[in-house]
Amino acid sequence: MKKLTTWLLAAAVLTMAVPASAQFAKAEDAIKYRQGALFVMQQNFSRVAGMASGKIPFDAKVAAESAAVAEFMSKLPWAGFGPGTDKGDTDAKPEIWAQKAKFDDYAKKMETEMGKLAVAAKTGNLDTIKAAVGPTGGTCKSCHDDFRAK
Amino acid sequence: MKKLTTWLLAAAVLTMAVPASAQFAKAEDAIKYRQGALFVMQQNFSRVAGMASGKIPFDAKVAAESAAVAEFMSKLPWAGFGPGTDKGDTDAKPEIWAQKAKFDDYAKKMETEMGKLAVAAKTGNLDTIKAAVGPTGGTCKSCHDDFRAK
Repeated sequence: MKKLTTWLLAAAVLTMAVPASAQFAKAEDAIKYRQGALFVMQQNFSRVAGMASGKIPFDAKVAAESAAVAEFMSKLPWAGFGPGTDKGDTDAKPEIWAQKAKFDDYAKKMETEMGKLAVAAKTGNLDTIKAAVGPTGGTCKSCHDDFRAK
Repeated sequence: MKKLTTWLLAAAVLTMAVPASAQFAKAEDAIKYRQGALFVMQQNFSRVAGMASGKIPFDAKVAAESAAVAEFMSKLPWAGFGPGTDKGDTDAKPEIWAQKAKFDDYAKKMETEMGKLAVAAKTGNLDTIKAAVGPTGGTCKSCHDDFRAK
């Protein structure tokens, strides 16, 4: 029984680990990939947040488009955090790989909130958007606080 | 008549120019944005191209997902090529802004081919994917040949 459990665990780890690492020719590409995806997401999210805070004039169409792009992008960075991508030109803390479940949980929460923001932005109602921006930004912040080097 | 034409042209230029430049807080952000979007696209396209050439084992699901991401990404970089984004940490040649219509035409062609590749990849048929990869890669190459510094 113990043997089977060990084997199943090992198989599960392998299944999860292989696609993430096999997707990129080298760790450097994975790092550039996640950074690129996060930057494109952040720029789109910031535009919507800027409209919510009044720093950028509200444009319902641009807000909806930007939030939709941010939602799409929120699904992409995680493939770039595979095993062996902790060293290099990165602000990612080693804690990401030491506390992978916690990191994945943050990632899921962020994806969920970006999805809600995209739904909110589709309404074209600025107050609805304002209500969604805070919780979304909060998921960015909590992950950065714990897992990104200052 | 000449005045009206001039005014219409000026208005058209303004309409096209303002959103692109206004989307980013600074030129550096626009440059990082287009580089990030292009890199995420390239990584996904390369995965599909690698399967088509036999360098990467064919996985229909991964090919379809990667091609769909590449198609989505193909629409994003252009916002980052607004006026004033020709200087900085970039391989973009000044010809992009001097020959904007030609550049925009290349961009459209690439988007179209990435769309066709995504449709091809959805079929799950490797030969269909192979047939679409060449023309898609060709649109990347022709633009890089003319508009990207070596």
